[in-house]
Amino acid sequence: MQTPRRVRDLGITIGTLPTGPLNAITDVPGVRVGQTTISSGDLHTGVTAIVPSSVADDLPAADGLPAAEGLPAAVAVGNGYGKLVGSTQVDELGVIETPILLTGTLSVFRVADALLTWLLDRNPRATSLNPVVGETNDGHLSDIRSRPITPAHVHAALDSASADLPAEGCVGAGTGTTALGFKAGIGTASRTVDSGTVGVLVQANFSGTLTVRGTEIPAPPLDADGNSCMIVVATDLPLDARQLGRVARRAVFAMSRVGSDYAPGSGDYAIAFTSNRGRTFAEKGLRPVFQATMESTEEALLNSLTMATTTTGFQGRTAPAVAHDVLVSRLESAGLLD
Amino acid sequence: MQTPRRVRDLGITIGTLPTGPLNAITDVPGVRVGQTTISSGDLHTGVTAIVPSSVADDLPAADGLPAAEGLPAAVAVGNGYGKLVGSTQVDELGVIETPILLTGTLSVFRVADALLTWLLDRNPRATSLNPVVGETNDGHLSDIRSRPITPAHVHAALDSASADLPAEGCVGAGTGTTALGFKAGIGTASRTVDSGTVGVLVQANFSGTLTVRGTEIPAPPLDADGNSCMIVVATDLPLDARQLGRVARRAVFAMSRVGSDYAPGSGDYAIAFTSNRGRTFAEKGLRPVFQATMESTEEALLNSLTMATTTTGFQGRTAPAVAHDVLVSRLESAGLLD
Amino acid sequence: MQTPRRVRDLGITIGTLPTGPLNAITDVPGVRVGQTTISSGDLHTGVTAIVPSSVADDLPAADGLPAAEGLPAAVAVGNGYGKLVGSTQVDELGVIETPILLTGTLSVFRVADALLTWLLDRNPRATSLNPVVGETNDGHLSDIRSRPITPAHVHAALDSASADLPAEGCVGAGTGTTALGFKAGIGTASRTVDSGTVGVLVQANFSGTLTVRGTEIPAPPLDADGNSCMIVVATDLPLDARQLGRVARRAVFAMSRVGSDYAPGSGDYAIAFTSNRGRTFAEKGLRPVFQATMESTEEALLNSLTMATTTTGFQGRTAPAVAHDVLVSRLESAGLLD
Amino acid sequence: MQTPRRVRDLGITIGTLPTGPLNAITDVPGVRVGQTTISSGDLHTGVTAIVPSSVADDLPAADGLPAAEGLPAAVAVGNGYGKLVGSTQVDELGVIETPILLTGTLSVFRVADALLTWLLDRNPRATSLNPVVGETNDGHLSDIRSRPITPAHVHAALDSASADLPAEGCVGAGTGTTALGFKAGIGTASRTVDSGTVGVLVQANFSGTLTVRGTEIPAPPLDADGNSCMIVVATDLPLDARQLGRVARRAVFAMSRVGSDYAPGSGDYAIAFTSNRGRTFAEKGLRPVFQATMESTEEALLNSLTMATTTTGFQGRTAPAVAHDVLVSRLESAGLLD
Repeated sequence: MQTPRRVRDLGITIGTLPTGPLNAITDVPGVRVGQTTISSGDLHTGVTAIVPSSVADDLPAADGLPAAEGLPAAVAVGNGYGKLVGSTQVDELGVIETPILLTGTLSVFRVADALLTWLLDRNPRATSLNPVVGETNDGHLSDIRSRPITPAHVHAALDSASADLPAEGCVGAGTGTTALGFKAGIGTASRTVDSGTVGVLVQANFSGTLTVRGTEIPAPPLDADGNSCMIVVATDLPLDARQLGRVARRAVFAMSRVGSDYAPGSGDYAIAFTSNRGRTFAEKGLRPVFQATMESTEEALLNSLTMATTTTGFQGRTAPAVAHDVLVSRLESAGLLD
Repeated sequence: MQTPRRVRDLGITIGTLPTGPLNAITDVPGVRVGQTTISSGDLHTGVTAIVPSSVADDLPAADGLPAAEGLPAAVAVGNGYGKLVGSTQVDELGVIETPILLTGTLSVFRVADALLTWLLDRNPRATSLNPVVGETNDGHLSDIRSRPITPAHVHAALDSASADLPAEGCVGAGTGTTALGFKAGIGTASRTVDSGTVGVLVQANFSGTLTVRGTEIPAPPLDADGNSCMIVVATDLPLDARQLGRVARRAVFAMSRVGSDYAPGSGDYAIAFTSNRGRTFAEKGLRPVFQATMESTEEALLNSLTMATTTTGFQGRTAPAVAHDVLVSRLESAGLLD
Repeated sequence: MQTPRRVRDLGITIGTLPTGPLNAITDVPGVRVGQTTISSGDLHTGVTAIVPSSVADDLPAADGLPAAEGLPAAVAVGNGYGKLVGSTQVDELGVIETPILLTGTLSVFRVADALLTWLLDRNPRATSLNPVVGETNDGHLSDIRSRPITPAHVHAALDSASADLPAEGCVGAGTGTTALGFKAGIGTASRTVDSGTVGVLVQANFSGTLTVRGTEIPAPPLDADGNSCMIVVATDLPLDARQLGRVARRAVFAMSRVGSDYAPGSGDYAIAFTSNRGRTFAEKGLRPVFQATMESTEEALLNSLTMATTTTGFQGRTAPAVAHDVLVSRLESAGLLD
Repeated sequence: MQTPRRVRDLGITIGTLPTGPLNAITDVPGVRVGQTTISSGDLHTGVTAIVPSSVADDLPAADGLPAAEGLPAAVAVGNGYGKLVGSTQVDELGVIETPILLTGTLSVFRVADALLTWLLDRNPRATSLNPVVGETNDGHLSDIRSRPITPAHVHAALDSASADLPAEGCVGAGTGTTALGFKAGIGTASRTVDSGTVGVLVQANFSGTLTVRGTEIPAPPLDADGNSCMIVVATDLPLDARQLGRVARRAVFAMSRVGSDYAPGSGDYAIAFTSNRGRTFAEKGLRPVFQATMESTEEALLNSLTMATTTTGFQGRTAPAVAHDVLVSRLESAGLLD
């Protein structure tokens, strides 16, 4: 079995902007990630938690949560065939007021309820909270109908959140996902721009033909149930919700760069938020932010594939990891390797 | 204590169109309603289930569910400060594929998960389902943080669904709600138009000044936490999803007729669906459908109040029912009584 | 013929908030209004210009225009059966960058082009501008197919803009409009809240049953072609575009208070903007802003009727003004007169 | 000067689906295209008209126009920095009721007004019409502030509409546009699927790095004012407006395949319509329709470039055509030539 490696470590550079120190969403000040992985027998699923804190003001932010006022945020719906929890309130108020969780389709409400439990414990007077939980369908490799995620799994993901480089590939909400015909999972990347950082974390689970820097890497046919993509974009730039909506749309657009076919049955969503409540970002400064978003999304998607390992799961189905040597030789031939 | 009476039984007629036989959402062919009420001590909450079936074609509709293809539907967001589950997929695909449930805010994910359980049991091969669950905040009269709704409560509501006149007032998801300063709850009404029926069911929980046929009935101040409104509109006319979106918006507009102030903290949503999959309704026939929607919504909202009874709940708080005699005498003075 | 009077001068008070000094949109600092009226024979149409300037910063604002950056703004679509020019760019960028003009349906593009001419003259290097022009259909009383509005008419409206009380009733874009069965036109009103002012100007042209403080004033049937409503909301509070979108929706909701039936063929739009670029308004302060918006809209709509005069126009059609004495006596009977 | 050639004639095949007979939007039954080109000295602009007729029912369709009921249609806004005329009514009613015109930014209202003139002449009783006119900014090569388009130009485009292969490159609304650093313009392509045809026509004018089948073809820096893209998608499949909205979004997504950077200042819109009013297309059949849309869009965008010729215009600025030999040799090296 090949050793999981990030796409950049294979000599493949995406875009032109510099990465953050970890090349991860956790490069964004105030952003931590925690994950719980369930991987045995028929079960290949889990939870990924993106836990933001405010970094730019002195409002109270209890225990890694956004303070009561929330953090500016927006949702972009590329294809709404998904069960994203929390979107209408984010649209209305332009903020997230909880961590963002990702999981498998049929567990999304159990996860949202467990997030509520965790939040109610930390906010003794709260009587209304808007959890944001996304999902993709990992039913190809996992017994999705069993809904195995428990509150303990959710709380472990939240409690273990750290600012380290998040694990990628077959972990957390990506344990059972496949993309572009290969085993995929969680991926992350980041870019720095003049005044801050943009970081992305993806749960990749969609169809199409893997394309790396323009080079197609076709996969053997994989009869996968699920084909969706959740993209979380974080920044510490003082964007407002409207601007974050523009950013989130670019994340969806970037799926095309790795070969997404935007199939009708896919639930393709991006959620963008900032840990900076300033809301003072000048519109004319958005171009590099868009570029950073698209580059980070493209690289995070590729990392979700190259960091994944061949997995056999529910009903004996197998999803193969993309072969690094094939990938590298194809890009070397094309003169696209560093 | 006054006997709960529907507004029409008090001699107050809303609008000019004829009602259906029951003056209820269950007048719409294919629509059944079931409810579970939790009402004791600190708990005043519950579940209301609107269970639709297809009536206009021969696709299989297992056990009261829409068949796999779903029923045309749309969501209108009046004010998105709420945790409506399922909206992005309804927007994308233009269908509901499950019953619609209503409950209290913090229980919405438990209810959605229990609906999944019920559906998975009935659909042995399903690996993706989009439950639609709305909520309003009943925390003024109920200990909302305890999240008392269990799967058994949800399943009881679903299993008891019938085409009878639904109970109104302090039942189901309306057990603990208040509106316009008074105790409110569930209300329903219907109108017939040339070729079919429009029926509405509401979970009323919003602020403003009660207005009945233009006459204001101010309430004593009520320091209520929740102020939201869920409106479900059903019809058997062959509208498509876009037209149902237009209908749903009119339901939100009709809240004004009873005195809603559309406060910033309110989660005001309408979901419209049809039990007829024809999708062949001519645009020029919409005017009476809009009228039927607005009249039904207005009357359902009033029924939610006149059918409610004074309730004392969490932390000893009391919400008074609107006094029928005051209401009747005020309208009699204004010459607006039948 | 009765003398046109504002509804408040008839002894009818709408809502509870205090009005601004003029009870008009021009109470909002930085907002001026100019109008051109065409009223003779078969033609009853015109142009109304709302010309905003920035009041809260020192960016250059040449000659009554917003500066290059624009003023925060949002559009709410109540019913999109109308030809509103400029909405997608307002949605994307959250600003208006030109005055807002109102006119008759088939003249809307001529008016937009004339606005461009006026702006290009004042901005020698501009190569892209997003005019915002609304319309309602005044074809019942005016020979709409003749499209009589010329650039000179448009420029006269813009050049005459002042901070005085705008003319109301049968003037400008309201010269030929009817509402609720009566002759209507332009109306305006304002409210003050703690930290600023909200002002509204309407072009009223929609169907339903006139309702004044809950009292219905039915009109003789009027077979009017057009039934639409344009509502412009201005404020000097530092709202951002998302918040202004919430405000704009309340303006649409307020149409119900005067009896709109929200007919399918109506183009009902609200545009809200602020002359204050601060974008620092706290969400929790929105409740009085919403109330001010709804009260101002309601009163502006009533002013558009009580200030209008009976008009005979195209093909000899007549639209009657609402009779003040009937209105006053009906409200006096109901105990609703000051 | 190289002879303009379509990308497929250079040996470059896009996608896998078969093209229609002309590989053009006019392969779609009921769709005709006419264009007026203004190209001399400082002026490089024009008008492109897409003129649809109903093909699937017997409603009257006078003179190439949709009949009164309109044709199902939807707009997708990729980036709303543009002056698209007509979108809110298309959103509300789900139909286009006029031909679709494309032109340069500052001429869009003159063109819309001229379209009105043309339509009013053909519809003696019409008093309300919703022209749909898109634009991109051709001010880099054309003296855009002069607004040179006259009604005669517009009517010539409409009157000359034919079902032949439309001219591509520097014609009509593409006369002055540039894309991805090269001279661009109008392009078209089509694909056939089981039961019908999907055709696309584009006005290309956006920024990024030209990418052909994954191979980047960087251009010398071009300081272009405008960067936008209008995409018109036509089909004869019986889709409804909601489904056409899904199709239109895929057209925007496909811009990524040729290297769009989705810059903040770009007005990127797709309008999709069908000449078939059936509204009976099964959701599960959409996958090949999406694929056909994306392939057609990608190829139409490439045709807009390879069919364009080096152009010198306003203020002596020059935009170079992409060199076919470079393109071909690059793709030959990559093994991507037929």
